[in-house]
Amino acid sequence: MMTIGEYLFQRLKELGVDHVFGVPGDYVLGLMDVLIKSPLELICTCNELNAGYAADAYARIRGLGVVCITYGVGGFSLVNAVVGAYAERVPLVVISGAPNSAVRKNHLLLHHTTGDYNLQLSIMEKVTVASVILTQASQAAKQIDEVLSACLHYKRPVYIEIPLDVVNQPCTFSESSLNAIPQLTELTDNDALKEAITEASELLKKAQNPIILAGVEIDRFQLKEPLIKLLETTGYPIATTILGKSCLPEVHPQFIGNYVGALSRDYVRQRVENADCILCLGAIMSDMNLGIYTAQLDTQKLINANSEKVKIKHHFYQPIYLGDFIAGLIPNLSYQESNPLNIQPAIKRLSKTFEFKTEDKLTSGRFYEAINHFLDNDLLVISDTGDSIIASIDLLMHKGSDFIGQAFYLSIGYSIPACLGASFAAPDKRIIVLVGDGAFQMTAQELSTIIRHQLNPIIFLINNDGYTIERVIHDGIYNDLQAWKYHELPHIFGESWSCEVSTEGELQKALLYAKMNTHCVCFIEVHLDRFDCSPGLIRLGKAIEKMQKLSN
Amino acid sequence: MMTIGEYLFQRLKELGVDHVFGVPGDYVLGLMDVLIKSPLELICTCNELNAGYAADAYARIRGLGVVCITYGVGGFSLVNAVVGAYAERVPLVVISGAPNSAVRKNHLLLHHTTGDYNLQLSIMEKVTVASVILTQASQAAKQIDEVLSACLHYKRPVYIEIPLDVVNQPCTFSESSLNAIPQLTELTDNDALKEAITEASELLKKAQNPIILAGVEIDRFQLKEPLIKLLETTGYPIATTILGKSCLPEVHPQFIGNYVGALSRDYVRQRVENADCILCLGAIMSDMNLGIYTAQLDTQKLINANSEKVKIKHHFYQPIYLGDFIAGLIPNLSYQESNPLNIQPAIKRLSKTFEFKTEDKLTSGRFYEAINHFLDNDLLVISDTGDSIIASIDLLMHKGSDFIGQAFYLSIGYSIPACLGASFAAPDKRIIVLVGDGAFQMTAQELSTIIRHQLNPIIFLINNDGYTIERVIHDGIYNDLQAWKYHELPHIFGESWSCEVSTEGELQKALLYAKMNTHCVCFIEVHLDRFDCSPGLIRLGKAIEKMQKLSN
Repeated sequence: MMTIGEYLFQRLKELGVDHVFGVPGDYVLGLMDVLIKSPLELICTCNELNAGYAADAYARIRGLGVVCITYGVGGFSLVNAVVGAYAERVPLVVISGAPNSAVRKNHLLLHHTTGDYNLQLSIMEKVTVASVILTQASQAAKQIDEVLSACLHYKRPVYIEIPLDVVNQPCTFSESSLNAIPQLTELTDNDALKEAITEASELLKKAQNPIILAGVEIDRFQLKEPLIKLLETTGYPIATTILGKSCLPEVHPQFIGNYVGALSRDYVRQRVENADCILCLGAIMSDMNLGIYTAQLDTQKLINANSEKVKIKHHFYQPIYLGDFIAGLIPNLSYQESNPLNIQPAIKRLSKTFEFKTEDKLTSGRFYEAINHFLDNDLLVISDTGDSIIASIDLLMHKGSDFIGQAFYLSIGYSIPACLGASFAAPDKRIIVLVGDGAFQMTAQELSTIIRHQLNPIIFLINNDGYTIERVIHDGIYNDLQAWKYHELPHIFGESWSCEVSTEGELQKALLYAKMNTHCVCFIEVHLDRFDCSPGLIRLGKAIEKMQKLSN
Repeated sequence: MMTIGEYLFQRLKELGVDHVFGVPGDYVLGLMDVLIKSPLELICTCNELNAGYAADAYARIRGLGVVCITYGVGGFSLVNAVVGAYAERVPLVVISGAPNSAVRKNHLLLHHTTGDYNLQLSIMEKVTVASVILTQASQAAKQIDEVLSACLHYKRPVYIEIPLDVVNQPCTFSESSLNAIPQLTELTDNDALKEAITEASELLKKAQNPIILAGVEIDRFQLKEPLIKLLETTGYPIATTILGKSCLPEVHPQFIGNYVGALSRDYVRQRVENADCILCLGAIMSDMNLGIYTAQLDTQKLINANSEKVKIKHHFYQPIYLGDFIAGLIPNLSYQESNPLNIQPAIKRLSKTFEFKTEDKLTSGRFYEAINHFLDNDLLVISDTGDSIIASIDLLMHKGSDFIGQAFYLSIGYSIPACLGASFAAPDKRIIVLVGDGAFQMTAQELSTIIRHQLNPIIFLINNDGYTIERVIHDGIYNDLQAWKYHELPHIFGESWSCEVSTEGELQKALLYAKMNTHCVCFIEVHLDRFDCSPGLIRLGKAIEKMQKLSN
């Protein structure tokens, strides 16, 4: 006979989860004992917010990520990670221990609570697509399945609360229920789908210069294969948003780069904005994804399909599931020979080699160019919020390489805990982290957990003496930071390799060493001037200046 | 003409606030510009949760604390600090920047949001006693006053959200409104008060062996003076809870110690539990305050007055404000000569000097005894959750010395950011921090902000190789931590003094040095065995063992 705790972890294992991130606390220790004996591994972090970020990154890679925390102090510390997952459609499962059912009923003032035993659920309900307190053993299996099913269907966070006394109660379930998590009914209205495909196909066929703009939902709903089939059927060029970066292999010959409004490279911006039909697939139209509203996408030319609906010009077809729309388009379109000739594949930008000018002081532009040439196959690049994520627009992910960045919600401090989660989710890939000094200070302690587990990411700590991106937007004394000796920090936490670089020669040596040294974390502190921005940010500045001149 | 931003900060200044804790972000930079030009000082922290803890400690000392953060990522990262303040009745003002009113109305997908512009308010409403979005300039002054008034009245958090475009709008207010924050109407029902005082006085007069048990609300509602007057009128002995520790001077000759159920010193426990009438004033009856429900307080002997009601035996009088109840009791009671003779004042425990056995390895018991003798006048002791706060039951606060610990909500990691906040709130006191390794790892980066501002706390990092208190309750691999070189960490952050101690002789030297060295932080890593607990925790263990034997 299985217990409820055992059932929960078995279900998660079946869904491809091997690791759970969490922080112990007395309301969850009983559940953690079950977890430790299960086929899953518990990875303890320094605090709960960091556990949430780690599980979020794990979910982006594995299709499901799990965080397990104690009641009150644990759950409430996690809220920002859950909201971020909600915004960016990340299938994150939040599991919280809770006090015994009996004391809850008596409204006792237990530690870690305010005495209101519905508070945590009522907050989590607002930031998840399904949530439950497991109170009745007889219902628990069904409730667990329903909540996990919603997580997989909507690709958004869910919440499961388990009182201490419920963990080890016997779990009753029918034989069949363990076979498969029930699928939510597909939402597509077939008549609407048919009409939408007809209209979209006609627009695309008429277009002389169409383009595809793909976004993060391609990745979340595992639609990479259909997308590539669509590309090969049509020959269209494709760009991706920054949140959707690496949702298809960036070495694909039809991939031209990341389109992010005025933050984009010039060729990509012109190609997208001058297209006469834009097929937008699974992109979240957020301000950052649209280059802080500098994107000029003419609605008259736009076919915009999201996970649940299709919008053409100013009218909607819904409900239509994105996967159904892509699958429906393919047989209706054919190869357009005229267009591929014009494509400048992004991969071509890397044809010339990078020459280090060993005596030169490092600049932001040269640093990111060097990184672009350093990047290789089978890596996972994680960029933190700030200039790091903007600089990533110019980086190309090679064969088997992926990118993670919280490009819509933009919580600074995401990258170091995300690196921990990603390292367990993708043990076959080496992780590269780009993080600014301000972002690093937010969650720096999680570097110790990376070191504790002898993981081997290469972390570039970009020390430009403060919140540089904010200095550019709106400077003030609040953008100053205490200057840490960043490169000495890894040794405080355990076995590691680190250095600091200020010249191109020093960077060259560090990169060579880091590439070879795969047995521990490699931490490289990169000194840049405080106003030295990435090429993407400079492009944005120029575009805004030009707009201001035009409006004067 | 004053702007809305200026009005807000002027109001806070009038209410005794000199510092605001926060983290910059683009939705709040405009407001921070106003703050910087105001008479208030902005203290930037490494992350928002830490800013919340710092402002919480500031509020405990000054009667009002303020945290100022950006929208979404800022507000949601802060939730645990706000819930903690709510639970422990801390008057914390949360100020959040927010996007322009226009973009909110259009439901644009802005970064740091999910696109739902009521989400942050709707969560903050659940964990505060008053909340508002300032949308209309003409209403803002009144709304600010109302929210601040609720914070002062209820001693609980409040929330003010200010869209970017509202900050610099002119603030209209009548001349009179700037004179004083309106007081909420006093809640006391005078007939109920009269009857409650009569009944309570009669019970106390009849008692042969009465005692007062005071709690945190004495401190929050500034009732220390009336309490001392009550003590002097009656001659009763007094104990305080752990959350209420130092709500009256612990050097008072009638003060016998902290009563925390089985965690208490034996004399204190017997004296409280054997009393024939217990006058309980402003104590929150939480599990930890009651010694994890080992407290044996006979309801038949209990007069329990809280901020809003009085309970005698099993009946209630309400609404009655605690201050009115104490003031009403004083003229009805007189000095009982028989009792004072029996009081063993807590201060007497320190009469013999502490002799360091220089070669001996440090134990937990000897360490805290040494600290107890090291403590002096005009200090502020902050203990983090874990064995540190339990050990503090045995520490005596000298003349002008106070204690802060989150003894009900018990968030680990509170102490280091709280030390930052307290240092600005009480610049005339030297701060002493007792923090375990697990708690320290949660919020360690805020040590850098303490160093940045050249503050001079003495921090005892108690390194017992993991979550010792959890090991005692329920051990498992989740209680292990990565072993940091803690005493080397301060140097990474800036100018500081640190050392590690394992013997009594080393501790003696470190204490001597730390006492003299007042120009920077003194960080002392104390090595203790992983199962070596404080005397309080040992007492609890023995009591539980005894209870189990009795029930067998």
